[in-house]
Amino acid sequence: MSSITFIGAGNMARTIGTRAVAGGNTVEIMARDQSKAEDLAKALGGGATTGEWGAVPAGDIVITALLHAGVVPTVAEYGDALAGKIIIDISNPFNATFDGLAHSEETSIAQEAAKIAPAGASVFKAFNTIFRDVLEKGRPDVFFAGDDPQAKAAVTAFIESLGLRPLDVGGLKMAHWLERAGVLTVGLAGNGIGHGNFAMGVKEFTD
Amino acid sequence: MSSITFIGAGNMARTIGTRAVAGGNTVEIMARDQSKAEDLAKALGGGATTGEWGAVPAGDIVITALLHAGVVPTVAEYGDALAGKIIIDISNPFNATFDGLAHSEETSIAQEAAKIAPAGASVFKAFNTIFRDVLEKGRPDVFFAGDDPQAKAAVTAFIESLGLRPLDVGGLKMAHWLERAGVLTVGLAGNGIGHGNFAMGVKEFTD
Repeated sequence: MSSITFIGAGNMARTIGTRAVAGGNTVEIMARDQSKAEDLAKALGGGATTGEWGAVPAGDIVITALLHAGVVPTVAEYGDALAGKIIIDISNPFNATFDGLAHSEETSIAQEAAKIAPAGASVFKAFNTIFRDVLEKGRPDVFFAGDDPQAKAAVTAFIESLGLRPLDVGGLKMAHWLERAGVLTVGLAGNGIGHGNFAMGVKEFTD
Repeated sequence: MSSITFIGAGNMARTIGTRAVAGGNTVEIMARDQSKAEDLAKALGGGATTGEWGAVPAGDIVITALLHAGVVPTVAEYGDALAGKIIIDISNPFNATFDGLAHSEETSIAQEAAKIAPAGASVFKAFNTIFRDVLEKGRPDVFFAGDDPQAKAAVTAFIESLGLRPLDVGGLKMAHWLERAGVLTVGLAGNGIGHGNFAMGVKEFTD
């Protein structure tokens, strides 16, 4: 069982939060609009609580359930309140036409967040390749990237508690490639396979 | 049934060629070393033939089964011999440490090949996300990208003839993202899931 704080009270916090509560995790919600945090905590049930925006999160794992443009500024704003935390960035920095990324550099939102995260914090990328609809109804594979081995074990356990399969793609610099896989997922959705009914995953082929 | 020419007589030509013959396609092999082309054609059976390096391929679909550095120079060398052909680039331009690409620009081998391909040729990216071992023993999904709708239908039919599922990720500029998915696949292989026993694919989740 993990203790999780969501920074953000939108649809992704609701969807992952629902699975987190069902998986026996302790859940806290933080939002700029405290009433939205309270509404979501109430909707989630399972003893979900709220915390004050900018305060030290109760959770060992902090999920920034924000639009991509909000992630780095929010990590900066929280500052030392995130010291020692595992921070999971789930965002997709798509460009305006959803066929590329907002940045072309060899970086990612997660890597940029790591640059400004406080001491002892460990940033991960995860969940960004999965449409929310799929996360609600299915059991998609969850690709993740991050550096710290101990934190990796915690992230693995958390994803498993959601009833999902964690797939470690490597160190945090692989976040860059996960964001690119997000673009590929949208490309697939626009070319015949549909939207909200599939996810990229791994299929195994044994001899 | 499609008519396929492989430019290159290495392992990938052998593996895809084996499936192509089994699927009832007409197969031609071209290699700089004519004896290698002949050896592979003989090994494939099914009436596989050889063609002279640089001549007009017999196949409507030409697969450049070459290392990434060879693809663009070979398309340039063939020149007008490839006029009107569907050219499938299957390469992965990995960097020396296999954790990134040899180029950092927003391009791909397939897009670079398209820039110099002759009139009427249509370049596709496909197969690059699949380890050869998996292609030998399993039925992985085949992501592909390309622009021309009529050529897309031909590529789709060819992939289906191999007993594999084609997944259209969009226009040729998505080749860029498929090469990045190749990096992700290697990242997965290096972090616990193994090598030669999995492939990225799509899982569907219906209501």
